[in-house]
Amino acid sequence: MTYLQPVPDLDHAAADAARERWATRAKPPGALGLVEEMGVQLAAVTGVCPPTVPKRPAIAVFAGDHGVVADGASAWPQEITTAMVATIAGGGAAINAFASQIGASVRVVDVGVANPTDTFADVDQRRVRNGTASIADGPAMTVAEAESAIEVGHAVANELVDDGADSLIGGEMGIGNTTPSAALIAACSGHPVEGLVGPGAGLADSQLAHKAQLVESALAHLPADATPVELLAEVGGLEIAALAGFYIAAAQRQVPFIVDGVISCAALCAADRLAPGTARRAIAGHRSTEPAAKVALDHLGLQALLDLELRLGEGTGAALAFPLLAAAATAMATMADLPTA
Amino acid sequence: MTYLQPVPDLDHAAADAARERWATRAKPPGALGLVEEMGVQLAAVTGVCPPTVPKRPAIAVFAGDHGVVADGASAWPQEITTAMVATIAGGGAAINAFASQIGASVRVVDVGVANPTDTFADVDQRRVRNGTASIADGPAMTVAEAESAIEVGHAVANELVDDGADSLIGGEMGIGNTTPSAALIAACSGHPVEGLVGPGAGLADSQLAHKAQLVESALAHLPADATPVELLAEVGGLEIAALAGFYIAAAQRQVPFIVDGVISCAALCAADRLAPGTARRAIAGHRSTEPAAKVALDHLGLQALLDLELRLGEGTGAALAFPLLAAAATAMATMADLPTA
Repeated sequence: MTYLQPVPDLDHAAADAARERWATRAKPPGALGLVEEMGVQLAAVTGVCPPTVPKRPAIAVFAGDHGVVADGASAWPQEITTAMVATIAGGGAAINAFASQIGASVRVVDVGVANPTDTFADVDQRRVRNGTASIADGPAMTVAEAESAIEVGHAVANELVDDGADSLIGGEMGIGNTTPSAALIAACSGHPVEGLVGPGAGLADSQLAHKAQLVESALAHLPADATPVELLAEVGGLEIAALAGFYIAAAQRQVPFIVDGVISCAALCAADRLAPGTARRAIAGHRSTEPAAKVALDHLGLQALLDLELRLGEGTGAALAFPLLAAAATAMATMADLPTA
Repeated sequence: MTYLQPVPDLDHAAADAARERWATRAKPPGALGLVEEMGVQLAAVTGVCPPTVPKRPAIAVFAGDHGVVADGASAWPQEITTAMVATIAGGGAAINAFASQIGASVRVVDVGVANPTDTFADVDQRRVRNGTASIADGPAMTVAEAESAIEVGHAVANELVDDGADSLIGGEMGIGNTTPSAALIAACSGHPVEGLVGPGAGLADSQLAHKAQLVESALAHLPADATPVELLAEVGGLEIAALAGFYIAAAQRQVPFIVDGVISCAALCAADRLAPGTARRAIAGHRSTEPAAKVALDHLGLQALLDLELRLGEGTGAALAFPLLAAAATAMATMADLPTA
């Protein structure tokens, strides 16, 4: 499995050089806050100081469906996944608008939608299966299927980098996918399910206890000694597994990647178990309003750049954060030395 | 005084149309959080729905010095103001880097630096006086000087809009200017000085009580019935007064403008007293780490887009927020209708 190749260590010398560079720019020490930290992270990830300004971001949106929707996990039917795949492929989704602002390409990948998407132009057909089984009743998929989904994301990231992308953003579309995300984050962080479950894309408050119960049911059949792939097979999702593979490839290729909302965070938790060191190469773009997102970010030691109360996914929060990366790298490259009074 | 001409009401019909438009875009209701609110604000400010995507932002950085620095208000000497004016004019400051990322022009305006800046190329010379007197000992400047400084900022904004700017960012440079900002915010909000004063650009914790005392001394000579101009003359600063005039002109011209950190917030507090309605036309770019910033934003009813732990000024937080405006307007213009399942 190529996704199991090791993730290189961060370049600590480049990170130190970046800190030193910030300390001597024309501003009080630390006055650019998280922008400075991001510049250090870019240097550490790419091994270059000052880091090259990223100019060719590529976005992949992985789509999959979730059997747990039949158990009442979402306010929306699975047909919305299909419709939104068409909308993204047609350029009419929020992620397309934000991508155009940053000059990013958008590729939508069907890794496991339940209904056909092959009548839509411009959908990358990599379907592993037609949606998952309900995690509340048993495994979402087989271990072989989880591996295939991871490999889809891993291959997509490698293709994008081979085609010249200098930074990567992973997004997702999948009605019901905040439920497996909460399960994955609970399993990885050890955080109790209580306080992890939110309304996702609009579930009524009265349904939250039921959603939490679905997560508990999922965790009940997860073996205590589950391997990382088994974890994704038992309580994950096809687009989540693909995102995990996508992040691992970005980390292996030493390309900066920006994580989006709660589903992306769940994928990163899994990715970091599959290929340790992946998470510390990530940049957290946005803190989702879902409570599990904060738990995941804390677990991974990441601080999100934006907090715009987004709860959409698709990679939108990551795309909106991209200009901050470019600004950090530009400042490191162009700022003058500290004036001497 | 042209700056006393009325500020037009927000266009509530355009705002309603913007809300309706968001509600029918391809996403769950409200899922774009503050991005949606910003789109509504752009429509309300410009009277156009969907709002035109801002493409020609202009940045003005107003520079001034503060007599209160001699009383120990800052960790830095006044010479840094002069040096940073030269750095900004030469293109080597953080604001220049961030401006280049958003395609913005940067104009640095000497409205009241203490030392000469006329040997530097590309500094807009509009000096009203050579820095203020210490607000701790008496008025910072005369009422006539405060009016002149307001008019400088007002004229600069009008010039930039006349030259084709479709959005405005005001920044500042002035060693010591968090002290008059705290005084202005205390006076406008009624908040006690305790809890308002922070370290600015690096004052030692041990000096914070002294800084708070300087603010108290300033407020002690402020008449209870001070007019808005008297408020700026007594406890303000030249670049702060200029920023107030700048925001008023932006509001009068119905051009979106983005407010930066704590000094900008103080200027907006004063601007809204001079020309009521100015603040509700503002977009708050970044929440400064200075405690007075949060008090000012709450007082003005504004929620900042970014919280990146910046404490630099120059307009940096506003410039970093600009891409979010452009993204909001683009999404409103290009997103498809909600799919029907």
